[in-house]
Amino acid sequence: MSIPAWSEKMLQLLRRMNNFYSAGSCRAHCLRFEIGGAQVGWIPPHVAPLLAQYPQVFDPPQGGVVSLCSSLDSYEKRSEAVDEVLQSLRKEESLTFLKGWRNERYSVMPRYCDPPLMWMERAATSLFGVRRYGVHLNGYTVSNSGEISMWLARRSATKQTYPGMLDHVAAGGLAADAGIKHTMIKECEEEACIPAAIAEKAKPVSTVSYTYVEEGEVFPESQFVFDLELPKEFKPKIGDGEVQEFYLLPMDKVKELLVAGDFKPNCAMVVLDFLIRHSYIEPDSEPYYQEFVAGLHQTL
Amino acid sequence: MSIPAWSEKMLQLLRRMNNFYSAGSCRAHCLRFEIGGAQVGWIPPHVAPLLAQYPQVFDPPQGGVVSLCSSLDSYEKRSEAVDEVLQSLRKEESLTFLKGWRNERYSVMPRYCDPPLMWMERAATSLFGVRRYGVHLNGYTVSNSGEISMWLARRSATKQTYPGMLDHVAAGGLAADAGIKHTMIKECEEEACIPAAIAEKAKPVSTVSYTYVEEGEVFPESQFVFDLELPKEFKPKIGDGEVQEFYLLPMDKVKELLVAGDFKPNCAMVVLDFLIRHSYIEPDSEPYYQEFVAGLHQTL
Repeated sequence: MSIPAWSEKMLQLLRRMNNFYSAGSCRAHCLRFEIGGAQVGWIPPHVAPLLAQYPQVFDPPQGGVVSLCSSLDSYEKRSEAVDEVLQSLRKEESLTFLKGWRNERYSVMPRYCDPPLMWMERAATSLFGVRRYGVHLNGYTVSNSGEISMWLARRSATKQTYPGMLDHVAAGGLAADAGIKHTMIKECEEEACIPAAIAEKAKPVSTVSYTYVEEGEVFPESQFVFDLELPKEFKPKIGDGEVQEFYLLPMDKVKELLVAGDFKPNCAMVVLDFLIRHSYIEPDSEPYYQEFVAGLHQTL
Repeated sequence: MSIPAWSEKMLQLLRRMNNFYSAGSCRAHCLRFEIGGAQVGWIPPHVAPLLAQYPQVFDPPQGGVVSLCSSLDSYEKRSEAVDEVLQSLRKEESLTFLKGWRNERYSVMPRYCDPPLMWMERAATSLFGVRRYGVHLNGYTVSNSGEISMWLARRSATKQTYPGMLDHVAAGGLAADAGIKHTMIKECEEEACIPAAIAEKAKPVSTVSYTYVEEGEVFPESQFVFDLELPKEFKPKIGDGEVQEFYLLPMDKVKELLVAGDFKPNCAMVVLDFLIRHSYIEPDSEPYYQEFVAGLHQTL
């Protein structure tokens, strides 16, 4: 089977978005971040010395592990102690990621099903390799002949991350204590003015999970994916200003754009998952079909 | 979030079907099986000494690797040399798996997209930990109110593997040189008398991939999954005698049966994937949602 350029580019994207687990990544030099003996993240090598300045919060590294001090024995104590450290580190020039402080609290726990052990500012999660969860909505129309077109958003040019790139019609991070479907409905309303009466018909269909390293920070992420067939006459409208324009594009065009480098990378993954689930990619003609499915759903 | 017994049982199934990669598995003691420097399988520790009896076919183990002799420099030469070894080993009492000889040739290659380097008898693939590919068809009906019921098959009591257990309406292994959709249509006809005119409407939607160890043999498998909405009036009929009965069951009942231990294990996985893709499982109420999706789509 000869390998089309499209397939090679998609495989490269999946490898890049899973590069934490590839040979030669910084993983071998990361320390496990543990709370009460349970791993909740990965601390990159350049972050560990910064944490060592706060021995009242972080125990000294031992056996490849950095633990929160056991005296921090409640959700509140852990959250507040780490927040104080972060507020202090934020003043240091070296940690560019903390420049993107958002005042958004994310839950920290070993697995999604476990009770949260603390909250952490969103911008800091990648310094600790803490898992982040989000929701992505595939909003689309189906023509009378059954052809699907997908609504996509062009991110605002002033967005902190990935300005001007293609995005889902609605997507967002899962804040501490927020429900998954609730977050999806909220993002629909805020980002694209999709009323709750329509948004609540969205169907949960998958997760897309991956772990990448970028500029020395570790991003283990899992997106809960929803599909929403929108009424043909419905048009999304700009809500909170995070979007500059919406487009309705036939899937063949979406497929082309995936490899043009115009998509926010994790959105490209969620769209690839959509193409597979909706049979726009067939295993007899796609040499990497199995690799695509596996690469989209990695164990965190 | 409290963990329902159903969820725990499904997680146990996924762990068992991926036990090759769990801590303490035989993986640490397996040798890599290579052809021309590319890994195509895993040789369990008890198999390596048997192969050492055939130095004209297998090079002596070196650095954790058993290679085919480089003198076997074509598809035909490799296939025939290994087949001769297997025919000879088949006479030994110790290799119970070779008792299930089927005269079905499977392709051996590093990844599905690579050109096959040789063929191997299906019953021997687990002695070499060679990847096996197959097709599974979710055949179902949709009521006027949108409720899905799935057609399932009870395997014949005389089947060599998993006799009497629940199975898909059609499924089968992918033989050397066989197309994926072609195999699916052929299995539909042979196993359930689904005419090609209906079967060809099946949609490719996913793969389910896992690697398990059983009785010292290694099974890395990937199933190409198709969904087929069957006409309400259609009833599958027993074809080649591999099935004793067909049932049409509402999804709630199917979900219950999944944890009753009545399903062939890889069919249970493909049905779990169906439940997720068709929103019969929701992430707000299923604590292991992300673990389920990842466990169904492991990298081989």
